Amino acid sequence: MTKPRILITNDDGINAPGLRYLIRVMRELGDTVVIAPDKPQSGMAHAVTIQTPLRIHEIANEPGYMEFSCSGTPVDCVKLGQKVIMKCNPDLIVSGINHGSNSSINVLYSGTMAAVIEGAMEDIPAIGFSLDDYSYQADFGHCGTYIASVASNVLVHGLPPGTCLNVNFPRRNRSEIKGVMVVRQAKAIWDENFEERKDPRKSNYYWLRGEFVDKDPGKDTDQWAIKNNYVSIVPVQIDLTAHHAIAAIRKWDFTGKS
Amino acid sequence: MTKPRILITNDDGINAPGLRYLIRVMRELGDTVVIAPDKPQSGMAHAVTIQTPLRIHEIANEPGYMEFSCSGTPVDCVKLGQKVIMKCNPDLIVSGINHGSNSSINVLYSGTMAAVIEGAMEDIPAIGFSLDDYSYQADFGHCGTYIASVASNVLVHGLPPGTCLNVNFPRRNRSEIKGVMVVRQAKAIWDENFEERKDPRKSNYYWLRGEFVDKDPGKDTDQWAIKNNYVSIVPVQIDLTAHHAIAAIRKWDFTGKS
Repeated sequence: MTKPRILITNDDGINAPGLRYLIRVMRELGDTVVIAPDKPQSGMAHAVTIQTPLRIHEIANEPGYMEFSCSGTPVDCVKLGQKVIMKCNPDLIVSGINHGSNSSINVLYSGTMAAVIEGAMEDIPAIGFSLDDYSYQADFGHCGTYIASVASNVLVHGLPPGTCLNVNFPRRNRSEIKGVMVVRQAKAIWDENFEERKDPRKSNYYWLRGEFVDKDPGKDTDQWAIKNNYVSIVPVQIDLTAHHAIAAIRKWDFTGKS
Repeated sequence: MTKPRILITNDDGINAPGLRYLIRVMRELGDTVVIAPDKPQSGMAHAVTIQTPLRIHEIANEPGYMEFSCSGTPVDCVKLGQKVIMKCNPDLIVSGINHGSNSSINVLYSGTMAAVIEGAMEDIPAIGFSLDDYSYQADFGHCGTYIASVASNVLVHGLPPGTCLNVNFPRRNRSEIKGVMVVRQAKAIWDENFEERKDPRKSNYYWLRGEFVDKDPGKDTDQWAIKNNYVSIVPVQIDLTAHHAIAAIRKWDFTGKS
């Protein structure tokens, strides 16, 4: 049987421990191509580089394993990995392990998940992995068997067109993890403000800071799962249409056409 | 009656003609605060600035009208506009008019739409406007009455929680526009590749280039509407859960827990 070809990226950058851990797990499952940003790209969401050209730098080139750093965003990495390095579609795209949760609305800010959503746009099976721990020294030891299990399932079953998976791990020891829950995205918000400071020339500048607030009472959400020691899996789709809202808006009077 | 407070931004930058046009239309509808990027931010999607601090620069401060440029992304502009400038939630957020269509999956790449999705996250009514013409000198003359009509409807009816509107205009004369269609996001892709070049030091660099390909046969899509001389309105939601995919994935065997 041919080994699956797996494209690996992240948004914390090529040297992030979470990526290094993910690479070790995925090399057991198939031939792997790693292409990841040469610097941290957290919060870059689905940004693509169009104003400047992109650079890639080869780090390793062995049978079954290639590794590159890239000057661009996570989505740039996926596009370059497919079109320039692999010159074909991979069988699977994985992204992460992100240092920090990408549950709930963080899916919309996350570069990790944007790389995966980019796969869904081309109907390539894709999975984003994130750990609910922002620390650079985070312990990923409990994630490996679950990552292998989810990835193997996706390689066997595939995913529906236009969808991908958002997998989040709680910050727990292996023995504390109760299992896997397939859930929906929680309705949460960032309660944010800006810290105003003055530079030495007395001009103001602002740092964004905020607190994540889960307002969702449901027990079928990613936030609930993570808080209750489960690995959460949310299937994510690229169709953002609010189909339930169409009928009501069609009744509005758009006098602009007169 | 109190005038509505309207926050205006875009991703083409503070000087873009599309923004200038939108400001003129919105000043007829309410008190307006403009905060837009100080440089083009196309393709920045939902990126937020967290590695560097943000700057804002006051351009105008008159009764009922304030204008600022910002060093950050469109999403940064919305957050700063609310938290630092207005110090309250606006009654409406509008973004655009984008120089270029944001129909179909472009909603996921678009900084214009990210600003609007940011509003939906906080249940603030929000509308993104885009014209299917990338030219800096694009003619927006046919957009004004429709913008006023859609915005007035949203101010009266509101929008369901967690949703916003993606409005796209065809590149047509006013007389050619047939009306408004409330539709779904088309299933389209970008067929992309990279142009490889060598710099004077013989190192490779890459420019992303691509062609938008609409694969969707439906006549209820934003792409169909625009091609057939309608103004398209897609209600967009922040819940990315592929609810239809949950049941099947729950049947998978996640042996990782053993």
